[in-house]
Amino acid sequence: MSYYVGIDLGGTNIKAGVVDGEGKLLNKLSIKTNADRAMEDIIHDMGKLAADAIKDAGFEVKDIEAIGIGSPGTPDNEDGLLVYSSNLPFNNAPMRKLIREVIDLPVYIDNDANCAAMAEAVAGAAKGTKESVTITLGTGVGAGVIVRGRIYSGFNQAGSEFGHTVLVSGGVQCGCGRKGCFEQYASATALARMTKEAAAEHPESLLNEVYKEFGEWNAQIAFVALKKGDKVAADVVDMYTSYLADGLANAINAFMPEILVVGGGVCNEGDPLLIPMREKTMSRPYFGPGVPKTRIELAQMGNDAGIVGAAMMGKSCVDDGMNGI
Amino acid sequence: MSYYVGIDLGGTNIKAGVVDGEGKLLNKLSIKTNADRAMEDIIHDMGKLAADAIKDAGFEVKDIEAIGIGSPGTPDNEDGLLVYSSNLPFNNAPMRKLIREVIDLPVYIDNDANCAAMAEAVAGAAKGTKESVTITLGTGVGAGVIVRGRIYSGFNQAGSEFGHTVLVSGGVQCGCGRKGCFEQYASATALARMTKEAAAEHPESLLNEVYKEFGEWNAQIAFVALKKGDKVAADVVDMYTSYLADGLANAINAFMPEILVVGGGVCNEGDPLLIPMREKTMSRPYFGPGVPKTRIELAQMGNDAGIVGAAMMGKSCVDDGMNGI
Repeated sequence: MSYYVGIDLGGTNIKAGVVDGEGKLLNKLSIKTNADRAMEDIIHDMGKLAADAIKDAGFEVKDIEAIGIGSPGTPDNEDGLLVYSSNLPFNNAPMRKLIREVIDLPVYIDNDANCAAMAEAVAGAAKGTKESVTITLGTGVGAGVIVRGRIYSGFNQAGSEFGHTVLVSGGVQCGCGRKGCFEQYASATALARMTKEAAAEHPESLLNEVYKEFGEWNAQIAFVALKKGDKVAADVVDMYTSYLADGLANAINAFMPEILVVGGGVCNEGDPLLIPMREKTMSRPYFGPGVPKTRIELAQMGNDAGIVGAAMMGKSCVDDGMNGI
Repeated sequence: MSYYVGIDLGGTNIKAGVVDGEGKLLNKLSIKTNADRAMEDIIHDMGKLAADAIKDAGFEVKDIEAIGIGSPGTPDNEDGLLVYSSNLPFNNAPMRKLIREVIDLPVYIDNDANCAAMAEAVAGAAKGTKESVTITLGTGVGAGVIVRGRIYSGFNQAGSEFGHTVLVSGGVQCGCGRKGCFEQYASATALARMTKEAAAEHPESLLNEVYKEFGEWNAQIAFVALKKGDKVAADVVDMYTSYLADGLANAINAFMPEILVVGGGVCNEGDPLLIPMREKTMSRPYFGPGVPKTRIELAQMGNDAGIVGAAMMGKSCVDDGMNGI
C-alpha cells in the first residue's frame, strides 16, 4: 500500500492527515490558519503540519509518495502555484517551492471543491464510478467534476464554477458580477434570504417565531417551521427545492455524471429536503428512452473530504507521472 | 499517414468521405437518407457509401484504419449501437454489426454535435487545444465538449446537452420538457420567435416590411432591419445577444475551455452579431486575477464538420485501443 498526505487549507484552519491509496484517512491534525499572516509563514506551517502528521501516523517521510493540497481559489498545478484566492492573501504563491523547503516530497495543488469531489469519487458516494459531479450547498455553491477518474477543471484549472452559471437570467445580483447565478438560489445563504423575505411578507407565519429562537436568518428556520405545519415555510421549501432541482438538472445535462453527489449542511435536513430535491431533479433532465440515468446521492465524506480528496488528488498526479518537484 | 472514413448521418442526407490523420478531408459523397425506410436498409446504405468513398478516393479497404459515424441521438460506442434518436427510426440499432456486414473495418459511433466539436478541435477553430467546447446555433442549440483531446459525453454518452440547461427559470417551454432552456433563447428558432413577437408589438417597425421579403419569420430579419436603422430590430438583437452571451458564459464557467467555438448559420451575420456576443460573454465569466481566459472563436469546419469529426472520433477510438469489431 502507498501513502499520501492531504492538506486542507481553509480560511480558519489548516488540517492535514495521512491517507492510504484507497482513500482511508489514518490520522488528522489541525492548526489555526491565522490568515492575516505573511503568505510564506502560512505555507511553511502547512509543510510543518504535513511533517507532524507523518510522524503522528507512525510513518517516516520516505514512506509517503506525495503531498496533496486542497485550497480555495485557482491553482497552477504545473508550476506549483496558487494563482489566486479570494479568501487568502495569495497571489501566484509558490506553494510547492515553500512546502518543499520544509519537507522533501512531491507537492500537488488543486482547488478545495475539486478535492472534495475527488474524495467522494475515490472513497465516498461516487466510489467505483469514473464520472461524477459533487455539488456542495454551503455559504456558496461549490462544484467539482470528475472525468475518467480525474479532476476536470478546464485548461486554466479555474473550473468548474458551476455555482456561477446563470439559472435566473437577470435575477439576484451575485458577488461574481453576474445576475441570477445558481449560487444565489441554491446555497444555504440563498435559502436564508428566501426565508427572511417570506417572513417579512407574511407577519403571521411561524417563520417569525422560529427566527427568534435562532436570532439570525439561516437555512434551518424554514425546515423547523415546516415541521410545525407552517404553510409559508412549505412554500419557501418548495421554491428553494425547485430552484435547486433546476440547477442540479443543469449539472446533469451539462456533464451527464453517473452519480451526482450533493452535500453541505442543508442536506442534514433529511427527507423534507431530499425527497422533493430528488423527485424534481429527476423529472427535469433530458434522457432519451433506454439511456442510463444519472443517480443522485448524498455526500459521505463530511469534514474529511478536504484532506482525503487532496491526498487522492496527489495520488492521481503521481499515477499520471506529473512532476511535483 | 493513416486514413479514416467519416460518415455524417442526417435526417435528409448521408455524407461520407475519407479523412487523413490530421483531419484533412480528401473526398465527399452524399446520398439521400430516406428516413422512412427500414433501419437496416439505411445502415446498409451507410456501409455501401463508405465503401464507395474509399474507392472514390483511390484507396482500398485495407488502407483505412476505421469508420467513424456521427449521428443524431445517443450512441453506445462500446456495443456499437445507436440507443436512441429523436429524428430517426433507430432504437438500439446495431450500427456496428450492420455496417460490418457490408465492409470489414472497425466501426465507432458518436453523436453528431460531439463529432462537430472533434472536427473543430483537430482541424478547425480549436486546433492545438486539449479543452474546447463547440456550441452550434441552429434549429436547436448543439453542444460538444472536448476534454484532454477526447469527446466528453458523460457516463452514458448522452451529453453534453448544454442546450438544455435552464437559463431563464420558468421561461419558455422547451421540447425537452423543461422551461427556459438555453436553446429557447439562443437558437436561430429563438431569434425568429423574438423577432416575430417584437414585430407584433411594434407594427411601425421595419421588421414587418423585411418579413414580407422573406415570407417567413427567420433569424435573418432582425439583422436586415437593424442594418436599415430600425430601433426595434436593434432591441431584438440586443436581447438575443444578451441571452446568448449569458448561456455562453455559463458554458465557460462550467467547462473552462481554452477555446469556446461558436457556429451555425446565425454566425454568418458577422460583426452585428459577433461584436456584442463576444463583449457581453467576456464581461460575464468568473476568472480571478492572473487566471488565463477562455477565447471565443468562430467555427471553421462548416458543412464538413460532420464527416471530419466522425472520422477523427474514429481515430481517437483506434488510438485509445477501443474495440470496434
